[in-house]
Amino acid sequence: LLTDADVLVENFRPGAMARLGYAWDHLHARFPRLVYAAVSGFGHTGPLASRPAYDMVVQAMGGVMSITGHPDGPPTRVGTSIGDVTAGLFTAIGICSALYDRERTGEATMIDVAMLDCQVAILENAIARYTATGTVPARLGARHPSITPFSAFAASDGHFVIAAGNDALFRRLCRVIGAPEIADEPRFRTNALRTEHHAELQGALENALRRETVATWLQRLGAADLPCGAINDVAAVLAHPQVRARNMVVTTDDERLAGIEMAGNPIKNSRYPDPSTRGPVPDLMARDESTT
Amino acid sequence: LLTDADVLVENFRPGAMARLGYAWDHLHARFPRLVYAAVSGFGHTGPLASRPAYDMVVQAMGGVMSITGHPDGPPTRVGTSIGDVTAGLFTAIGICSALYDRERTGEATMIDVAMLDCQVAILENAIARYTATGTVPARLGARHPSITPFSAFAASDGHFVIAAGNDALFRRLCRVIGAPEIADEPRFRTNALRTEHHAELQGALENALRRETVATWLQRLGAADLPCGAINDVAAVLAHPQVRARNMVVTTDDERLAGIEMAGNPIKNSRYPDPSTRGPVPDLMARDESTT
Repeated sequence: LLTDADVLVENFRPGAMARLGYAWDHLHARFPRLVYAAVSGFGHTGPLASRPAYDMVVQAMGGVMSITGHPDGPPTRVGTSIGDVTAGLFTAIGICSALYDRERTGEATMIDVAMLDCQVAILENAIARYTATGTVPARLGARHPSITPFSAFAASDGHFVIAAGNDALFRRLCRVIGAPEIADEPRFRTNALRTEHHAELQGALENALRRETVATWLQRLGAADLPCGAINDVAAVLAHPQVRARNMVVTTDDERLAGIEMAGNPIKNSRYPDPSTRGPVPDLMARDESTT
Repeated sequence: LLTDADVLVENFRPGAMARLGYAWDHLHARFPRLVYAAVSGFGHTGPLASRPAYDMVVQAMGGVMSITGHPDGPPTRVGTSIGDVTAGLFTAIGICSALYDRERTGEATMIDVAMLDCQVAILENAIARYTATGTVPARLGARHPSITPFSAFAASDGHFVIAAGNDALFRRLCRVIGAPEIADEPRFRTNALRTEHHAELQGALENALRRETVATWLQRLGAADLPCGAINDVAAVLAHPQVRARNMVVTTDDERLAGIEMAGNPIKNSRYPDPSTRGPVPDLMARDESTT
């Protein structure tokens, strides 16, 4: 298998592959063009290298749980396995880079990706805020730490989000919801002031927003080119016209899985087709039968 | 600039680059080796292509907010800009793939990545659960939807996480916390039963866990090779020995930014150095001065 392979991906703890006879050094000597990608909880170096991990463990240790959820509320997990998913994405970047590098040098490399490292890498402005100010980033519910208004808001029949990322959008928002006087208040004049007085601003905006439904506001704000959106559940996401138009829900040709839907490929490439079905997975049973 | 460039990345709304004279077709004809990566809120096709978006908008519309937070609690944003971050990661994969493809075909391609599509792509098991069962995935607080126990737990002085991903780990967990009888209860015998009775199991485990501190449990569970972790805040993450050992906190050589720390590179490659500092950013003012 390795003779024809371009990439080997493994997610054992460090040392396990060597025990099985598949250490990187050994494989690299025999298959110099084989890219070797190792994904593990904590990576192949450092004091915790041999420790076990799951998504939940790195969400907790990597900081994202400390900034997700409501102030004084219970700990909150990101609802999707972001610890697994981001490690997969960074590994894919590492593999593609290694393949590109191999084209130029003729020789493959080993990639070592740790789930914990990837959580650190996605903390983005939380790290900058902490190192610049010394204040430890907190849980903020549904609002952005440094842009206001940029949050979930209550309409008459539920919540939706508005992201008014600059002064012009904020003024337009106040006008469209029929409360232009809010934009004139000195305490809401700049983004820094709005962030300082975010609770009062949330209340003032919701006084106006509670007069109409989510659907009405999404229509009116959308018509005014204001960034806003429904808080869609998974059923609404999969049925959404934009999601469907982008071929982001695909099925499989495998008859035994008829009706099962999966996420499509979000990387649309001008030269390659974007099929709306996936072939069946290799079937070990069927292969066994065919060889007897 | 384009004559020497390998990749052009832009994040305008569809049509903006064409108005500026930089449409893909036009550039591709002149610079056939230039990879063109377009990142936008909704992509270059579909009914919402021209709509504005920010991270918050695609977190809401893409479903992750509907599964993040506590049941009956208020809407909750993922604490980091996962809408921006995942779009960047998928775009990086697209660019690296296009560069590899260019090595083989001699010609570049255009990549079209939508932030909304990327949110669909990271929903992972929420899509499978919905299409397989018809039940719309809900907000579950800090617990995993289909693995139990896999959640945050209360010790005597705070919360930490345990991820006992299979029957053997669950039995070992009960033994290590001094409550082996929990593992013998019929209602907790399999993962499916534990997930069905997750609230009772949480209570039973916390009865034992509340007797000791987080630090004690992390030490004892860790010694027994059970996946567990502290819920670290950003300060603790940046100071963590494993994070430091992996060079995941870097600084810059730029004297004006002394003391500023940033996330390191989570893709460790066997052939390339992993420096712990980054060079200064280009300084437009300094360049202006040097040319006068």
